Amino acid sequence: MTTTPAPADIALPRSVMLREVLARLGDKWTVIVICRLSEGPRRFNELKRSVDGITQRMLSATLRRLERDGLVSRTVTPTVPPQVEYALTDVARSLHSVLFQLVDWTDEHLSYIETSRAAYDAASPPSN
Amino acid sequence: MTTTPAPADIALPRSVMLREVLARLGDKWTVIVICRLSEGPRRFNELKRSVDGITQRMLSATLRRLERDGLVSRTVTPTVPPQVEYALTDVARSLHSVLFQLVDWTDEHLSYIETSRAAYDAASPPSN
Repeated sequence: MTTTPAPADIALPRSVMLREVLARLGDKWTVIVICRLSEGPRRFNELKRSVDGITQRMLSATLRRLERDGLVSRTVTPTVPPQVEYALTDVARSLHSVLFQLVDWTDEHLSYIETSRAAYDAASPPSN
Repeated sequence: MTTTPAPADIALPRSVMLREVLARLGDKWTVIVICRLSEGPRRFNELKRSVDGITQRMLSATLRRLERDGLVSRTVTPTVPPQVEYALTDVARSLHSVLFQLVDWTDEHLSYIETSRAAYDAASPPSN
């Protein structure tokens, strides 16, 4: 990965990772799941109920990616049936506070962005 | 991208916009261009030179999207040839400071994420 001839400006692996992590946050479910788990550990079905509209498959995939990134821990209690609990790791908790600010910023500026877009589109010919 | 019928849980336009704005930040050039312009207004060619590896076409598209969102202003001075200068708007400046924290967070935790992934992949069978 490091051996690609890279633009000299930025360290490529970092920029690639950064882009990937930021793109991941663009996945609606990831942000919602992080926000839900920031309230405390949850079992799969609890989590599924609290994230309206998510399918079992999407929730599994989201949790697996977060677990792989070290952002969610998965604790299995060997009861019958086994209980599986998901929780944010400490690192994810630090992400959550930063992420929350970005979500807040976005939320605060949605109407600004919408208004800008409408003005831009009204002023620009739709050609090209 | 998902055509799934919308979940009732969260106000959809907000969540869609939020997702879209976050996904946009996952575009490498957007983040770099915002960071470069945070240092001061730039003409197109100056900006192009300072963002190594970006093509004219990609820079144009990135600036156009940022301008449409009200994050970049475009000032044309009617000299011969006309000079066009790009600058962050005040709103973009507030985004930059929030964004910078996320970039910082990601940068700080890249090796943690990489290590987690390697451990996860080593522990998990690659099937399904």
